[in-house]
Amino acid sequence: MITSRDNQQLKTIRKLLQKRRDGLFVAEGEDLVDAAAANGWTPEILLRSGVDVEPDLLPSSLGSGTRVVGVYRERWSQPGGDLSVYLHGVRDPGNIGTIIRSAHALADGPLILGPGCADPYGPKAVRASMGSIFARPPARADFGDLKGTTIALEKDAGVPLDDVALSPPEVLCLGAERAGLPTAALRTADFRAHIPVRQDGPDSLNVGMAAAIALYARNRMAARA
Amino acid sequence: MITSRDNQQLKTIRKLLQKRRDGLFVAEGEDLVDAAAANGWTPEILLRSGVDVEPDLLPSSLGSGTRVVGVYRERWSQPGGDLSVYLHGVRDPGNIGTIIRSAHALADGPLILGPGCADPYGPKAVRASMGSIFARPPARADFGDLKGTTIALEKDAGVPLDDVALSPPEVLCLGAERAGLPTAALRTADFRAHIPVRQDGPDSLNVGMAAAIALYARNRMAARA
Repeated sequence: MITSRDNQQLKTIRKLLQKRRDGLFVAEGEDLVDAAAANGWTPEILLRSGVDVEPDLLPSSLGSGTRVVGVYRERWSQPGGDLSVYLHGVRDPGNIGTIIRSAHALADGPLILGPGCADPYGPKAVRASMGSIFARPPARADFGDLKGTTIALEKDAGVPLDDVALSPPEVLCLGAERAGLPTAALRTADFRAHIPVRQDGPDSLNVGMAAAIALYARNRMAARA
Repeated sequence: MITSRDNQQLKTIRKLLQKRRDGLFVAEGEDLVDAAAANGWTPEILLRSGVDVEPDLLPSSLGSGTRVVGVYRERWSQPGGDLSVYLHGVRDPGNIGTIIRSAHALADGPLILGPGCADPYGPKAVRASMGSIFARPPARADFGDLKGTTIALEKDAGVPLDDVALSPPEVLCLGAERAGLPTAALRTADFRAHIPVRQDGPDSLNVGMAAAIALYARNRMAARA
């Protein structure tokens, strides 16, 4: 049982919670550590409170009461699948994690991260993924390298998403909530489409909501085809 | 210009950021304050950094750089509309705010908060609403008091949501991600339905994603009817 703050493993975890390095990341709590194990990830470090380490010493961004903390080596998927999501410039890690989870539920390809996106292996993103990051690690690519039919989702532009005929493999492309997709992506996408919203509604949907809705819509279209 | 930390308005804002009271809440940042004005809300206090108050003194949960902070009196809508969402036990304020925003985009009725939900007027929820809380203040009700067709959304239960024929006014009912809806609600709901997800997907969708998808699905069904 670790009883000293100066233990090297504790130091490593504390540092990783401050700033990621060396391709390692931290998963906090039983649900995430269980998801890692269920998906065959071997931890570099695994510390259980009261078993491997004195409870007061276990570092956590969640405060006291965290029962287990694991350190893992990040993995990256290759883009693929009949349905996937590409993000550009989405800086909020909670959104990244939530979209990883939604894509795990509603797509068969990994989330593809373009330039300017938050680190999917930061603590907030890993937590928001609720373990889906272990089942479906994200991919990295530039818009120009995407394979298949690219559908650029924009507010108030193009056609309603359901009017785009199904043509898998499809990549649903979304930009940050204000800036949107870069002009080059909009110009070269195979289709430009929007999610219909009410006239008197807000300026835009949350990017996580837009991704979930778009995935659902394409998924349902495929199920009916 | 306020130049003292001891100013009464600053004290009120600092206290409200710690703990809400007296039916007042804080909106931080120009976007939220602009949304309040656009929807006809008169602030009880409105302090602009460098205009009404020395920049260093303006209290904010967002850190320095906040340009304006407003204090408003909470408002509550009555449940209604042809399409709305009811939540039970959803404790994450970010989810509450995001669902207020999604409902503003995709429903015509206010979000209805049942027992055990987070305060929609707390700083996190107000921020996540991106101003939609000013356009469409939430309502409060118990499940038993809901009017119209109640559709209980559950994982892996009932029929696919699209198999429930449209019968407005409809209330989409969602529980917390783990606990779900209480048994009494499930027993008395007019329909029980689920959002189809992939077999190899995660255990559940984020409640905000589920609400957005369900709203979109009913909205599309109404548009085609």
